[in-house]
Amino acid sequence: MIDVSAYAANSAGGPLEKTTIERRAVGPHDVLIEIKYAGICHSDIHTARNEWGHTVYPVVPGHEITGVVAEIGSEVTTHVVGDRVGVGCFVDSCRACASCEAGEEQYCPNGYVGTYNNVGRDGKHTAGGYSTHIVVDEHFVLSIPDGLELDAAAPLLCAGITLYSPLAHWGAGPGQKIAIAGMGGLGHIGVKIAHAMGAEVTVLSQTLSKKDDGLRFGADHYYATSEKETFRALRGRFDLILNTISAPLDMDRYLAMLAVNGTLVELGLPENPITVSGFSLIRNRRSLAGSFVGGIPQTQEMLNFCARHGIGAEIELIPADKINEAYERVIGSDVRYRFVIDAATF
Amino acid sequence: MIDVSAYAANSAGGPLEKTTIERRAVGPHDVLIEIKYAGICHSDIHTARNEWGHTVYPVVPGHEITGVVAEIGSEVTTHVVGDRVGVGCFVDSCRACASCEAGEEQYCPNGYVGTYNNVGRDGKHTAGGYSTHIVVDEHFVLSIPDGLELDAAAPLLCAGITLYSPLAHWGAGPGQKIAIAGMGGLGHIGVKIAHAMGAEVTVLSQTLSKKDDGLRFGADHYYATSEKETFRALRGRFDLILNTISAPLDMDRYLAMLAVNGTLVELGLPENPITVSGFSLIRNRRSLAGSFVGGIPQTQEMLNFCARHGIGAEIELIPADKINEAYERVIGSDVRYRFVIDAATF
Repeated sequence: MIDVSAYAANSAGGPLEKTTIERRAVGPHDVLIEIKYAGICHSDIHTARNEWGHTVYPVVPGHEITGVVAEIGSEVTTHVVGDRVGVGCFVDSCRACASCEAGEEQYCPNGYVGTYNNVGRDGKHTAGGYSTHIVVDEHFVLSIPDGLELDAAAPLLCAGITLYSPLAHWGAGPGQKIAIAGMGGLGHIGVKIAHAMGAEVTVLSQTLSKKDDGLRFGADHYYATSEKETFRALRGRFDLILNTISAPLDMDRYLAMLAVNGTLVELGLPENPITVSGFSLIRNRRSLAGSFVGGIPQTQEMLNFCARHGIGAEIELIPADKINEAYERVIGSDVRYRFVIDAATF
Repeated sequence: MIDVSAYAANSAGGPLEKTTIERRAVGPHDVLIEIKYAGICHSDIHTARNEWGHTVYPVVPGHEITGVVAEIGSEVTTHVVGDRVGVGCFVDSCRACASCEAGEEQYCPNGYVGTYNNVGRDGKHTAGGYSTHIVVDEHFVLSIPDGLELDAAAPLLCAGITLYSPLAHWGAGPGQKIAIAGMGGLGHIGVKIAHAMGAEVTVLSQTLSKKDDGLRFGADHYYATSEKETFRALRGRFDLILNTISAPLDMDRYLAMLAVNGTLVELGLPENPITVSGFSLIRNRRSLAGSFVGGIPQTQEMLNFCARHGIGAEIELIPADKINEAYERVIGSDVRYRFVIDAATF
C-alpha cells in the first residue's frame, strides 16, 4: 500500500477537501504514475454532488489524468519509468468479451471499471486523478506523444476522446458538414479535431460571444442558437451534429438541421429524458445516437492524431485549493475552456 | 378528363362513400392504369379521419395500388398497354434535387407529391387508389414481376417497401440479428423479407397469439412483450429493431435490447412524441432512427426481390362496401394481415 495526497468530496453538499488515500501496491502488470495534471470534467461535479445518485463517499474525482511513470511492475512491457502517460475514464474491464477484444472496453457488457467511484476487480473502491499518484494496469495506461504538453493533453483523455470517437465512427472528413452544438470543454476540442479531419465545421452556440475563438479553433461557420433564423438557415444542412450540451434542448429543431441520413449524437448526459417527434426521424432517414468516450486503442489513436495536428485543450491551470471555486465556474459556463489542476498542489 | 368511380371520405367523422372523381387526361408521359387492387394502410385511416390535421375533403385514400396499363401517353417508353403495374405512396417529385437524382424521391426537400391528399404539380388535389383508374407519370409506375399475384402484391407498394428499405439500408443479412416489433400489416411482411435476406429474425409481439404464423413467415424466435422476462432475456441482443408499432412504447426498454452499434428504426408514425433517456443511447453507441418508404428504384428492387422469394402480403380481400367496417377492424388489430379492396367493386 502507498499513502498519497488527494482531494475528496465527503458528502453531496460539502466541498472537496484535502485528504490522504491508499493506492494499492504495484502489482506485476501495474504502473505507478506520478500525476502531473488532472482536468475537471462536468462528470466529476455530477459525481461529487451525487447528482446521478450512485456516489459512494468519500470520492476522489478525476479521469483526465497525465503524468510520468514512477515505477513499473515486474511483467510490464508497454511502459518504462519516466514515460509520459495518461489515464482516462476507466482503468479495467473484463478483457474477455467481444467488446473488450475489439478494443471497445467502454461498451464491455460485464462492466468496465471507472477510474473513480467504482469497484475495481480487487473489490476496492476506485479513486481518481485529484491526487499525486495512481496505480493502473498497464493495459489502461496511454502514451502521451512528444509534442503534446502534459497540461493541455489532460482533457484529451475524456473530452478529447468523447469527441474524436464519434467523429471517427461516423466518418468525419473532407466533404462532410459537421456541427458542434455547444462550445465548452467538450465542444471546443471537437471543433479542433473535426477541422483537422478535414470536415466543414459549424459551431452552434447560444450566443456569438465565443465566435472569434471558434473561428480560431478551425470552425468555418458560427451561429447563435438564440436566433430563430439560425434554425431556418441551417435546415437540412448537416451530416453530423455532435451535441455536447447537457441542458434540455428542443431536439426537433436540431434534428431538422440534419440532411438525408444525418445523425445527431448525444455526448453530454442530459439530466432529463430526450423527447423527439417520430416525424423528425422519419423525414430524411435521420438518426439520434449516443456515444461514450472511446476504447483504449482509439484513445491512443486520438492522442497520436492530436500530437500530429498540434491539438491540445485550451486550459486554465489552477491549484488544488481552487477546485471548489472552479466547480462553480464550470456550472456557470465561466471557463475557457477546461480547468486543469496542477497535481503538485494536491 | 376522365370520370371514374371512387370511394371518398367527405368529413373527419363520416364514412367513406361511393363517388365519381375526375382523372386528368393522359399526357405524353402518363400511364392510365386500370386499378385491380388497393390495400388499406393505417395512413389511409389517419388521413380519412384527419388525425394528422391536414386532410382536404373529399379525400380518396389508397397508396398500395396494383393494376394493368390501359393506355399510355405518346412519349411513354417504360410501360405498354397490358403491363402489370403498381403505384405506391407518391406520384411525383421535383426530379432535380440530389435526393431525386439519387432515386430517393421520398426525401425530396422540395416535397414529393403524395398519391392522395396532396397537391400535384398541376395544382390539383391528388386522389388515391380507392378508385377504378388512376393516371400517373411513367417514372412513378412500378412493374409487378411475373410470379407476384396482383392482390398480394398491392400491400408491398407501401408496407413492403417501408420494411425493405431500412432492412437494405442497415445491411440486413446473414449474421445479423433483427427484431420486428409488431406483427401486423407492416411487421408480417418485414418478417418474410428479413428472413429471405438471411438474417436471424425475432418477432416482438404483445402476445404469442400469432406465433405460429410468425414462425411460418420465417421468424426464428417469437417473444411476448407483455412478459417482463422478454426484455431481460433479450438485453443487448439485436443489431437492428424495426418498430412498426405506432402506440406509445417504453422506448428505453426496447433500446436496451440493442447490441453495440445497434439501431432501432421507427416506421410507424407515433401520434405522441418519443421519449428516451440519453443513457440508453450512449450505452452501446445506440441509434434511434426513422425511415420512410423507399425511392422508386428501391421499390422496384423490392418487388423483384419479393417475386424471386415468393413473398406477398397475407391478405383479406374485401369489396368496397366493406371499407368502413375494415377500418374499424384495422384499428382493433383484427386483420391477418392486410385488407385489400377488389377494385372491380368501386
